[in-house]
Amino acid sequence: MSSTSPLPAYASYEHMLVSSPAPFVAHVEINRPRKLNAFSQAVWLEFGRVFEQLSHDAEVRAVVLSGAGDRAFTAGLDVQAATSDGVLNGGEQDVARKAKALRSHIEEFQASISAMEKCEKPVICVVHGISIGLAIDIACCADIRICASNTRFAVKEVDIGLAADIGTLARLPKLVGSTSWVKDVCLTARDFSAQEALSVGFVSQVHEGKEAAVQAGVALAATLASKSPVAVQGTKELLNYGRDHSVDESLRYTKVWNAAAVQSKDFSQALMSGLKKTKPRFEKL
Amino acid sequence: MSSTSPLPAYASYEHMLVSSPAPFVAHVEINRPRKLNAFSQAVWLEFGRVFEQLSHDAEVRAVVLSGAGDRAFTAGLDVQAATSDGVLNGGEQDVARKAKALRSHIEEFQASISAMEKCEKPVICVVHGISIGLAIDIACCADIRICASNTRFAVKEVDIGLAADIGTLARLPKLVGSTSWVKDVCLTARDFSAQEALSVGFVSQVHEGKEAAVQAGVALAATLASKSPVAVQGTKELLNYGRDHSVDESLRYTKVWNAAAVQSKDFSQALMSGLKKTKPRFEKL
Amino acid sequence: MSSTSPLPAYASYEHMLVSSPAPFVAHVEINRPRKLNAFSQAVWLEFGRVFEQLSHDAEVRAVVLSGAGDRAFTAGLDVQAATSDGVLNGGEQDVARKAKALRSHIEEFQASISAMEKCEKPVICVVHGISIGLAIDIACCADIRICASNTRFAVKEVDIGLAADIGTLARLPKLVGSTSWVKDVCLTARDFSAQEALSVGFVSQVHEGKEAAVQAGVALAATLASKSPVAVQGTKELLNYGRDHSVDESLRYTKVWNAAAVQSKDFSQALMSGLKKTKPRFEKL
Amino acid sequence: MSSTSPLPAYASYEHMLVSSPAPFVAHVEINRPRKLNAFSQAVWLEFGRVFEQLSHDAEVRAVVLSGAGDRAFTAGLDVQAATSDGVLNGGEQDVARKAKALRSHIEEFQASISAMEKCEKPVICVVHGISIGLAIDIACCADIRICASNTRFAVKEVDIGLAADIGTLARLPKLVGSTSWVKDVCLTARDFSAQEALSVGFVSQVHEGKEAAVQAGVALAATLASKSPVAVQGTKELLNYGRDHSVDESLRYTKVWNAAAVQSKDFSQALMSGLKKTKPRFEKL
Amino acid sequence: MSSTSPLPAYASYEHMLVSSPAPFVAHVEINRPRKLNAFSQAVWLEFGRVFEQLSHDAEVRAVVLSGAGDRAFTAGLDVQAATSDGVLNGGEQDVARKAKALRSHIEEFQASISAMEKCEKPVICVVHGISIGLAIDIACCADIRICASNTRFAVKEVDIGLAADIGTLARLPKLVGSTSWVKDVCLTARDFSAQEALSVGFVSQVHEGKEAAVQAGVALAATLASKSPVAVQGTKELLNYGRDHSVDESLRYTKVWNAAAVQSKDFSQALMSGLKKTKPRFEKL
Amino acid sequence: MSSTSPLPAYASYEHMLVSSPAPFVAHVEINRPRKLNAFSQAVWLEFGRVFEQLSHDAEVRAVVLSGAGDRAFTAGLDVQAATSDGVLNGGEQDVARKAKALRSHIEEFQASISAMEKCEKPVICVVHGISIGLAIDIACCADIRICASNTRFAVKEVDIGLAADIGTLARLPKLVGSTSWVKDVCLTARDFSAQEALSVGFVSQVHEGKEAAVQAGVALAATLASKSPVAVQGTKELLNYGRDHSVDESLRYTKVWNAAAVQSKDFSQALMSGLKKTKPRFEKL
Repeated sequence: MSSTSPLPAYASYEHMLVSSPAPFVAHVEINRPRKLNAFSQAVWLEFGRVFEQLSHDAEVRAVVLSGAGDRAFTAGLDVQAATSDGVLNGGEQDVARKAKALRSHIEEFQASISAMEKCEKPVICVVHGISIGLAIDIACCADIRICASNTRFAVKEVDIGLAADIGTLARLPKLVGSTSWVKDVCLTARDFSAQEALSVGFVSQVHEGKEAAVQAGVALAATLASKSPVAVQGTKELLNYGRDHSVDESLRYTKVWNAAAVQSKDFSQALMSGLKKTKPRFEKL
Repeated sequence: MSSTSPLPAYASYEHMLVSSPAPFVAHVEINRPRKLNAFSQAVWLEFGRVFEQLSHDAEVRAVVLSGAGDRAFTAGLDVQAATSDGVLNGGEQDVARKAKALRSHIEEFQASISAMEKCEKPVICVVHGISIGLAIDIACCADIRICASNTRFAVKEVDIGLAADIGTLARLPKLVGSTSWVKDVCLTARDFSAQEALSVGFVSQVHEGKEAAVQAGVALAATLASKSPVAVQGTKELLNYGRDHSVDESLRYTKVWNAAAVQSKDFSQALMSGLKKTKPRFEKL
Repeated sequence: MSSTSPLPAYASYEHMLVSSPAPFVAHVEINRPRKLNAFSQAVWLEFGRVFEQLSHDAEVRAVVLSGAGDRAFTAGLDVQAATSDGVLNGGEQDVARKAKALRSHIEEFQASISAMEKCEKPVICVVHGISIGLAIDIACCADIRICASNTRFAVKEVDIGLAADIGTLARLPKLVGSTSWVKDVCLTARDFSAQEALSVGFVSQVHEGKEAAVQAGVALAATLASKSPVAVQGTKELLNYGRDHSVDESLRYTKVWNAAAVQSKDFSQALMSGLKKTKPRFEKL
Repeated sequence: MSSTSPLPAYASYEHMLVSSPAPFVAHVEINRPRKLNAFSQAVWLEFGRVFEQLSHDAEVRAVVLSGAGDRAFTAGLDVQAATSDGVLNGGEQDVARKAKALRSHIEEFQASISAMEKCEKPVICVVHGISIGLAIDIACCADIRICASNTRFAVKEVDIGLAADIGTLARLPKLVGSTSWVKDVCLTARDFSAQEALSVGFVSQVHEGKEAAVQAGVALAATLASKSPVAVQGTKELLNYGRDHSVDESLRYTKVWNAAAVQSKDFSQALMSGLKKTKPRFEKL
Repeated sequence: MSSTSPLPAYASYEHMLVSSPAPFVAHVEINRPRKLNAFSQAVWLEFGRVFEQLSHDAEVRAVVLSGAGDRAFTAGLDVQAATSDGVLNGGEQDVARKAKALRSHIEEFQASISAMEKCEKPVICVVHGISIGLAIDIACCADIRICASNTRFAVKEVDIGLAADIGTLARLPKLVGSTSWVKDVCLTARDFSAQEALSVGFVSQVHEGKEAAVQAGVALAATLASKSPVAVQGTKELLNYGRDHSVDESLRYTKVWNAAAVQSKDFSQALMSGLKKTKPRFEKL
Repeated sequence: MSSTSPLPAYASYEHMLVSSPAPFVAHVEINRPRKLNAFSQAVWLEFGRVFEQLSHDAEVRAVVLSGAGDRAFTAGLDVQAATSDGVLNGGEQDVARKAKALRSHIEEFQASISAMEKCEKPVICVVHGISIGLAIDIACCADIRICASNTRFAVKEVDIGLAADIGTLARLPKLVGSTSWVKDVCLTARDFSAQEALSVGFVSQVHEGKEAAVQAGVALAATLASKSPVAVQGTKELLNYGRDHSVDESLRYTKVWNAAAVQSKDFSQALMSGLKKTKPRFEKL
């Protein structure tokens, strides 16, 4: 992968490469391979913006995310850039004032990464190679996770003296079934393999090498993109809502959501196509 | 299955067949095999009523649910009936007025299916054959899920242009360990097998064929029915409460719940039976 | 296990044996082997106190819990002691007055066991031999669970006519991935094995025999104890907070928490050690 | 009040008298004046049903509730009927079994009264004369409270040895501004006057005598009935939702709700009528 | 106030004077008049303990709290003691380590004051004279607030460079009706009078001078103490629960609570006394 | 008001006029007097941006908001602009697709107005003249509300066929004490006066005419600006947090918040100034 040319509407990004390998599918690549796709502030701000744009882009119905190059999905925070950053080494400042600056800094960083979760289109994250620290925060924001067999995962933050604050600790326990495992990998910062990620349910597919994994991600995205976008985007919204609410709250929200969605032509069209065994075509969304 | 005769108290249902294959056990069969046990409005209203009745029936301490016939647990919504339904194809109506009718319609449908979850007795759902769409919504309301090896599962709603609104999206992510898998099956609407259902924890037993699965369900129900109904029904209530509340909230509710339950004779009787190695007998509940 | 001598600061406990098998690691043993480490009120009050003390003890950075002796982690509630207890067999008392006494009794019991979860240091629970009833309530409060291959687990309470009220029903469904399995073991009170506990994710390691399991627990604790206590304790706090809150709530709390934590020297020291490949040393916490 | 004839669709109720004193306005009278409009089980079941019917009745856009006769809005629970009721004096039954019967009884009673709150049309409660115990539970479920100057209010339950369980304790603190006052009247069970009810904000109008109060209620209801039912019913729903949710949750729900409602013709019609200074006419809802 | 002798069971407190001015009524006086009843750590620890003891003391059914001496209810934190306290001026310590000590310190302080809210008996707080800073945190934990006409109230914390952290900011907005007023007094730290406190609903009675206020408090407490303690304590619990939960959650909890409480003899006795016009006598609780 | 010159940092806004009438105080005027300060999309986007800038501007410690000109605070939505807006009159579009556009539109609008609530500095809203529809949504986001005696308030949305969706329905019931009053003004859309707004607690001061009201607002803002910004901003944050959380949740968050804030020099400085009777000076924040 891949000969697909960049999407013009996304040509201005410096660290994100966006192409369209299949109809209505966007493929985003974190594009800083010489730095192992590490994230400086400039990178995460772009990351947030690209997913906001995808969320509103009616030409896109499903997104694949991977890293550029063979070595890493991302090695996480660009530590060198971070240590030269004023926020993290602000000298003799007052504790409360420094705390305010840090809150503001963390909030901006969190919001940029969460933009992928908030993106209304489903996102398939293809993880490969070095995938540590922020890589896990990012993967946790995707809807479906696929990885290459060579992936080296680690929730690395404890080893730099930190509790992970960009979302791993908030999301990972809700994504996989074993809290004992989650606390093990978060507290020890140890590596874990593609196979381990599969067996605990963090990823749902493992493929031999990055290329195969990306191809599988694109194929899955193409499938999603062929379906009613009203149905697909509603399903994403309701599943994300359900994660954070009681069943009663979710049923109430679902009812109000679908009271508009069911009035869409997608419903009658898909229903009819099902009865007539034809392939439905859906309007943009 | 099975030579057990219908329970007289439930003889008036048209689409539900209720028998008692073991003491204090009720077996409910969705009984519309020629339609693959598909659900029209009449069916789901009966479904709700039967579980309300079971909830209050002191002769019943555990329930098994399956589909009648060999082909399907249920093929889900009766699409033909639905398309001739006024609510879904109401013509030129005002959007807000149609939305009100739809909310009301979805609420009634949700409430009918949720009645199984609200039933105070434990419910074991035995899934077999075709089990798509609404079949998953229903299975999610059970306490324990068992399936036949031939089961064909699918969260089918996306393929009819809909986000599932009868409970799958609210409950499924809380029932199994891998959100990546949940989103895969909900967004793609693909089939999955009994084995896959077992490996992600959606079901906890797979048996060779429907008959063996039903027998296993009945045996399990008989075990539950032999225990203190105060203990069993309290355990169901507290586990369901726990799903939707923080640990602190659950501990508080548990304390108030057990302050009455522990005063029951079941506690002293079971305690004494344990010490004396005798078999306790419990009053109806 | 083990030749390590008791920690003097914990010498006064009657039912808890506390030693330090590795730097900054405390090993707590429930020490009533002739009673299969069963819990009377005196035992659970001590259990609560020892974890409160560990939480504030700057010499301790990670804790291992096991049972003394070869036969049991704990056989749960000391039923003989309980039946002679005034609260549970109070005679002809008024129902509401007895309910108040029971609420107060359950609250004290819950608080004693929850003290392990509230302990700010990570706790590794090594389960072995007989581990039923209260054993599960306790294990659910640990961060990481390891067990011996000979462990006999059971959520036993239903068999004494009770819904478990010391935390299993509130916590277990949030610790493992399959609700169908959780309800099976909670409603039937059946035994389950080390292997089954591993496959559903309740424990994350199984070792051949108690000694090997304890050694693995100590080794894991020693690893945690070598890391920044600011990072480790923050990670525990944020993961526990995340379990009971929405992602948005967690991100907000995380931001405020780390606004102070990131100002610690542990962060800059760990960062520098990482760049310089040296081993960092952290101050007590 | 009043010469208006009963509404035929509501003629079958025994204890509820329903008339229409103004276009699209229903007036419900609790009609058991010789018993001071006290509630037996038969009365509250009818009360629930009448508000469910009103909720779905497109001919009704606003509801007024009062008591029949001059002496009482309602004297609350019919104590004589209650004491002959099996649930409350069930003899020597097991505590847990009696608790289950009581939970079921309270739930049915709560649901019947809450039906007024759940009714999608705004309800104006006109309180007058004796208005104690259940009278307050009922008034708390209304949207707007008006009272006659002769009203004698009391949260009477403590004086019959009970904590009020049909909703007063859950709702009253959210309806008025002073918790110190709420706890005073709930803990002492003392009487309070129309004037006191006005000054704490429990009612928003006091009128001289029942007749004037009912007239004011009907006039207010007529005003509401002249407005867009999409706007009015949406406003009720969103205010009730807001009471029980955080501001962020409410804004999210509002957004989804109005995404359908704003597509109604009521919006464009009302907007145009406003610009053209004409009186809009709205379709039924 | 008053010639009543101290209660022997509470004779060991150094800073709290506890007497019984009426049957089943305890009167707690903060007893450090030369220091304007200011709170050092020793004082607040005693304050917490006295309310824990009262909560379990079956001889007490209602509590009155006031300050000893004529000048102050309490002048709040003992600033001199605080500035010599190690926690607040810990020198050059690491920020995260100091933060941990502060969290632990604040938690202990909060828990001591919250003990009054958690006390299962109703507490009437009689505020008089100087009542600033911590005085408001304390008053917010009472059920009913009464004050003397000479009271000088202020939420003083902002003036010592702090956001109030012992409960005023969490509770005050839920106690009174005007958020605009709450933010005014919390942000400006300005004084407000007894009259202003009455008009916003913070207190529900104002009396001329401390003695009259205390007498009114005792009279009110005596009334509460004459009623069924099952009803009174249940009402307190359900009102406090209601403050922090949705109406649906409250109704569910109420149902479970009353399923035990209604089985009390207090209910049948109070009911019968009501019908027979006799004065009921209730057992201790 | 006022001869103060515009703040250069805010000179680029077209519809917002920002001056500094007192040290560390910013005065924002909605500046579209010929349109009665009505809001088109351009206006609300600027409104959001100005409050985001103020939130981060260390030169500003308190904000006053009013309308420019004598006639109106704001007449609300610019209906003419709205009706020519594509979102609201999108022709024959599919219902679900239009719903998505509307959700996105409402979300942007809500976020712009909520920016005032999220602004970390306290905001005093001075309401005057015509203040209808969106005027109430805006005022609800302020911390303290002051109004001129000539203010004409109305929650006008129902009269244009809408449930208010920019925040009034979510916030107003939490700001004032009488839900009966809130539902009256929200359901009837009737006008209410400055005096009525004061008596229900919506505003906390009324002044004769706009100029006096603005002067009072500026004076109050100057008071807040003279205090420790760590204390003032922390107080705002904790009060807003408290509105949407239980008391227990608030106490926990407060503890973590103050663990950093108390380490500020503001605390020791304010404490010392208090003891020495000097005026403290605080660093920027």
